[in-house]
Amino acid sequence: MSPPEIRIGVLTVSDRASRGEYAVQGGPAIRECLTEILSCEWVAVSRVVPDERPLIEHTLIELADYESCCLVVTTGGTGPAPRDVTPEATAAVCSKILDGFAEQMRAVSLKVVPTAILSRQIAGIRHKSLIINLPGKPSAIRDCLLAVFSAVPYCIDLIEGPYLTTHESIVKAFRPKVQ
Amino acid sequence: MSPPEIRIGVLTVSDRASRGEYAVQGGPAIRECLTEILSCEWVAVSRVVPDERPLIEHTLIELADYESCCLVVTTGGTGPAPRDVTPEATAAVCSKILDGFAEQMRAVSLKVVPTAILSRQIAGIRHKSLIINLPGKPSAIRDCLLAVFSAVPYCIDLIEGPYLTTHESIVKAFRPKVQ
Amino acid sequence: MSPPEIRIGVLTVSDRASRGEYAVQGGPAIRECLTEILSCEWVAVSRVVPDERPLIEHTLIELADYESCCLVVTTGGTGPAPRDVTPEATAAVCSKILDGFAEQMRAVSLKVVPTAILSRQIAGIRHKSLIINLPGKPSAIRDCLLAVFSAVPYCIDLIEGPYLTTHESIVKAFRPKVQ
Repeated sequence: MSPPEIRIGVLTVSDRASRGEYAVQGGPAIRECLTEILSCEWVAVSRVVPDERPLIEHTLIELADYESCCLVVTTGGTGPAPRDVTPEATAAVCSKILDGFAEQMRAVSLKVVPTAILSRQIAGIRHKSLIINLPGKPSAIRDCLLAVFSAVPYCIDLIEGPYLTTHESIVKAFRPKVQ
Repeated sequence: MSPPEIRIGVLTVSDRASRGEYAVQGGPAIRECLTEILSCEWVAVSRVVPDERPLIEHTLIELADYESCCLVVTTGGTGPAPRDVTPEATAAVCSKILDGFAEQMRAVSLKVVPTAILSRQIAGIRHKSLIINLPGKPSAIRDCLLAVFSAVPYCIDLIEGPYLTTHESIVKAFRPKVQ
Repeated sequence: MSPPEIRIGVLTVSDRASRGEYAVQGGPAIRECLTEILSCEWVAVSRVVPDERPLIEHTLIELADYESCCLVVTTGGTGPAPRDVTPEATAAVCSKILDGFAEQMRAVSLKVVPTAILSRQIAGIRHKSLIINLPGKPSAIRDCLLAVFSAVPYCIDLIEGPYLTTHESIVKAFRPKVQ
């Protein structure tokens, strides 16, 4: 039996992108960065939705539960503006929130722009999926993914997902020795 | 038509101060620090209340919704003591919490005193107002305001508030270029 | 009248340890580290429970309310795995969460292992008790306790607990001057 396919959800949250008024930049930036990081084979499952909380929640559930994505990465909707609701939608579908991701991503972004403190991006666990919110800007997406990815493969091990491997020159996956 | 007046709420939360037993230090320290930072004209709307959660909530709502303050800054009531309830009152009236403010303020305070980890101060958005909890001590108030203020004008832009400007020698307001 | 006895709860949360299949390492590591830190006399009240949320909550309440522990330290159950529920149990019995502890403990652990961002450990106040979640690994327990302990005696002062003193060569307890 071959190992299970590694499926990764890429969810772009953007009113303009969902209406086609705006070239979707976040999704391609995530796929490009994951291609750079991962040495295992994987498949992207991409979606674009407007900044509507029920739609975001529905799509996160679809990607995690029905599309069996072990990792779901979102881009957009994490700021303080009235339409920004991605973290709320993420928290609503997760059973556990991993505050360390948010802290680490803000710490890294803060070295680039002081407005990084406005980002409300979170990460959490839904069943056997790790969901991570990323910012909307492609350069910030890359900074954040590289900052946290060394802990992602072990996290997916702990929630009984597939075995992810990385290109060590980009990100070295860290797996502590079992006690 | 002249631009809208910039109104900033300054809320001192203190049992002793509200009874007049204690010279209110936090409020004047906030007004002094904001005068140092802001280059635009602004008006302070000041209040003093005891450490009672319903009163704090009521006053935050009054300052945000009826006094039209784009920014409301509190001082006091953020520690672990039984009477400290300012963060709970703030969270109860906000629709979004901006964890990056709390992290950044604690990180700065931690360079001064190890007990900074006891501070539970938060920041959040209520409609078109940004609410920020500050500590009670005047020197800590200044450290915290200076640490986060470069992101405040852009945050207020995003929630459709007035255009704040700063004295760049004190704090340089950062506004990212629009995508 | 002699001063009240200083009682500290040490709660090991582990399915394997509670079944006796596994040598309990976390509890002894906590007691050893506290012995190294504290210069006052104190008594450990130790418990071992499986990773079951109701049992953890019940034992935290017992240690805080009935055993009168001013400090309760847990080990285990703070990761992202399905059975890890110690932070949820802790949050459920606390009236205040002190996010600064979690930030500081993750920041220290992050210098050792990048997977520190997966830790969901929190600290909070229940009545007159400070509850702190620690990791399961003895070396990480020590790193985390040493990183936050300088703020612990003052925190316990603020919640009207006994007066803790420390060996200053290990951890210097910090108590700010009263305003």
